[in-house]
Amino acid sequence: MPLIEELVALLGPTSVRHHPLDRAVFSKDAGILKGEVIAAVLPETAQEVAAIVRIARRHDVPIVPRGAGTGLAGGAVPVDPGLLIVLTRLNRVHEVDEIGRTAWVGPGVINLDLSRQVEPLGLHFAPDPSSQQACTIGGNVATNAGGPHCLADGTTVAHVLAVEFVTAEGDIVTVGSEAPDQPGLDLRAVLVGSEGTLGIITKVLVRLTENAPDVATMLIGFPTIEGAAATVSGIIASGLIPAALEIMDQPMVEAVENFVHAGYPTDAGAVLLAEVTGTSESVAAGVEIIRSVAERHAPTDVRVATDDAERAILWKGRKSAFGAVAQVAPDYYLHDTVVPRTALVEVMSKIYEIGDRYDLTMLNVFHAGDGNLHPLVAFDSKEPGMLEKVQAAAREMVEVSIDAGGSLSGEHGIGHEKRDLMHLVFSDVDLDAQARVREAFDEAGMMNPSKVLPEGSRCFDASGVRL
Amino acid sequence: MPLIEELVALLGPTSVRHHPLDRAVFSKDAGILKGEVIAAVLPETAQEVAAIVRIARRHDVPIVPRGAGTGLAGGAVPVDPGLLIVLTRLNRVHEVDEIGRTAWVGPGVINLDLSRQVEPLGLHFAPDPSSQQACTIGGNVATNAGGPHCLADGTTVAHVLAVEFVTAEGDIVTVGSEAPDQPGLDLRAVLVGSEGTLGIITKVLVRLTENAPDVATMLIGFPTIEGAAATVSGIIASGLIPAALEIMDQPMVEAVENFVHAGYPTDAGAVLLAEVTGTSESVAAGVEIIRSVAERHAPTDVRVATDDAERAILWKGRKSAFGAVAQVAPDYYLHDTVVPRTALVEVMSKIYEIGDRYDLTMLNVFHAGDGNLHPLVAFDSKEPGMLEKVQAAAREMVEVSIDAGGSLSGEHGIGHEKRDLMHLVFSDVDLDAQARVREAFDEAGMMNPSKVLPEGSRCFDASGVRL
Repeated sequence: MPLIEELVALLGPTSVRHHPLDRAVFSKDAGILKGEVIAAVLPETAQEVAAIVRIARRHDVPIVPRGAGTGLAGGAVPVDPGLLIVLTRLNRVHEVDEIGRTAWVGPGVINLDLSRQVEPLGLHFAPDPSSQQACTIGGNVATNAGGPHCLADGTTVAHVLAVEFVTAEGDIVTVGSEAPDQPGLDLRAVLVGSEGTLGIITKVLVRLTENAPDVATMLIGFPTIEGAAATVSGIIASGLIPAALEIMDQPMVEAVENFVHAGYPTDAGAVLLAEVTGTSESVAAGVEIIRSVAERHAPTDVRVATDDAERAILWKGRKSAFGAVAQVAPDYYLHDTVVPRTALVEVMSKIYEIGDRYDLTMLNVFHAGDGNLHPLVAFDSKEPGMLEKVQAAAREMVEVSIDAGGSLSGEHGIGHEKRDLMHLVFSDVDLDAQARVREAFDEAGMMNPSKVLPEGSRCFDASGVRL
Repeated sequence: MPLIEELVALLGPTSVRHHPLDRAVFSKDAGILKGEVIAAVLPETAQEVAAIVRIARRHDVPIVPRGAGTGLAGGAVPVDPGLLIVLTRLNRVHEVDEIGRTAWVGPGVINLDLSRQVEPLGLHFAPDPSSQQACTIGGNVATNAGGPHCLADGTTVAHVLAVEFVTAEGDIVTVGSEAPDQPGLDLRAVLVGSEGTLGIITKVLVRLTENAPDVATMLIGFPTIEGAAATVSGIIASGLIPAALEIMDQPMVEAVENFVHAGYPTDAGAVLLAEVTGTSESVAAGVEIIRSVAERHAPTDVRVATDDAERAILWKGRKSAFGAVAQVAPDYYLHDTVVPRTALVEVMSKIYEIGDRYDLTMLNVFHAGDGNLHPLVAFDSKEPGMLEKVQAAAREMVEVSIDAGGSLSGEHGIGHEKRDLMHLVFSDVDLDAQARVREAFDEAGMMNPSKVLPEGSRCFDASGVRL
């Protein structure tokens, strides 16, 4: 039986999308890459996912999983024409353990929906990517997503206790457990961040985090971005780990302010958004530490929001940053590199220099506390030669980050976009170790091929001789 | 050239131990299993470790790594006659990053020595196994070790950012990084807890934890162990996560008190040791929560130690527990199962029943907050039939823990001792997934063979057909 017919027999006609319009809609994520979808299927259970994988494997068709499609690196784009498994209907919160502070959730549950659902229990899911109103827990797990509050709380891997997934052979396997130290190999952490290359996530046991009894959010304007960055270094050096430390530069502040009117100071060279959580005493102490470090760097404006309404306004600007860019240009390219915090000022100035040299419109917002930079280039892809220019600048920006002792990607994943840059941070034997593990899960190479690892990663045989 | 000659040519004669006495000394860890050591080698660098692995592979000899040998599950015992690589000379703290709060350390660094060395910076290494005066960081990483303070801080995997290791082919590979989210597969977490089956750890980037500004330690006596366990459940349900929650039963309190004279109440049915850390306000609040929960369960004695000397005395009892048992009998067998905290009382009573039925001397001390039980059977292995009786009881105790929704091992590792019990918690496809990953690192099966996974774990071929 042909592939489509077999899938329709399994799922019914409305859950198998293969008309040209559907195929076009599903051929992209939120980034710039376009792939080719043979069909997009929308299963509702892990058993259906397993059956789909077995059918696809019999037909020798590559398999690509997708959540909400908010990714930027092409992780959910079928670069090799393939079957797209869309997991948005696996969107149930199966079980919440209020005492143990955990929940079993489907991969299609939207990040913010989970936090809203457990809010009455005084709990939330800590990873908070900027796309949290739309992105799914499955996508968060697949990319090991971060967010402003990962400075203190850690990225998604710190909040995932177990993962149920469908293997390349169509088996349903669970890795990890509720126990503090699962016996055997910790395959849970390998699944987190594997971007669909090891299997399809069908259920996740997440850790829920207690809401802090008190919280304060500060907005501090500085004449220059150097002042904001130096304040971040000073705060970290003081021993305080705030819940969040975000910097936005002047062009970004201006775009955001025009968009949401949050009262950000558009005349400041940069704005630092800082948040401290804890008991009321520790929050008050944290606010004073941040204030005194900031005062050494000539702030133009220091505001402290202590009620929820004020806090929401300050955060609204940060969370709307990427939406605000649409006013500046129709397309944007968002970087995601990491640098040691001590190199923040030096790398930022090199990144501005690269943007100027390529004559690009650049706006910056970043998780400064983590050293996770997000330079954003706003452009119009219809301008001839523009995309090539953006990509050439992107490569240079990644290189200056790595040269400063940093890394290729903070939280967006490698996808297809960055896989050829993996050589910049990994040696041949490092990549070979990763490729072997991937092969252990997917011998035939049918799970999200052409993603994460560069071609030729599996380049040594067992005796160390290059194949 | 014969194996020993080649090793001597590489390391010199004093670093290659193969006399019968040496071979006997190195044939055991702290548990009851005995192996067969062909030779024990003591390298000083990662390059030497890599060269040793290449030599051993050429001679087709199994390779077993060893730290201080404090393990209980036979992880460092060569069950198949093999070459033991002793890593105690890789004991340098290479680099401490005071601002970033990390350190690159050799696997041979002793756990407590690291915390002592960074004490002047106000930092410590959080995992604190009871053997911390002797055990090494390498062993902590290999077993994903826990300890009393892992209740709030998490086990070793939460404190390891990167691992340098020597592969089965003798390459030196680093997994993980200082960046919050390393690109590619998270092989760091797989190395943690892999017990030498994937490679030999030669350097570890650990996270250092800030010492809390304030701390209080409480000792609370109860008429029964049920009262102590119910207090633990009540504390956790209140939302407070103390730094530690340890329970000792009456026989253990008596053994400890005879040994170290810490002033423990030997007439109490059980003793709860609780510790809270934080600001002085949050510590005071935590002490009050614990006191009020305890008071609902008729405590016979409530003490709060607030200065370092008093605290040290209270902890001395707990930390000396296993040493104290030597007065009771020449040998002991220490269990390490995990149960849901809600099942603590029920499982404990079943464990006492099993001990009584087999007529065994049992003492209990455990990480109650985590549900990590450590029933300890004190016995004389010279008594005929005794070891068999101890092992039969052990199996029953593991089974009642798993039946209650618990797990096989909390923090001691699987080693050789528990590998045949892995079937109790993992399905065939689960074990197959682990075995495949192991094969990806060690195709020939020469790295610590006969450990962790039961024989026959790799039982499916790629199409899902049982081999």
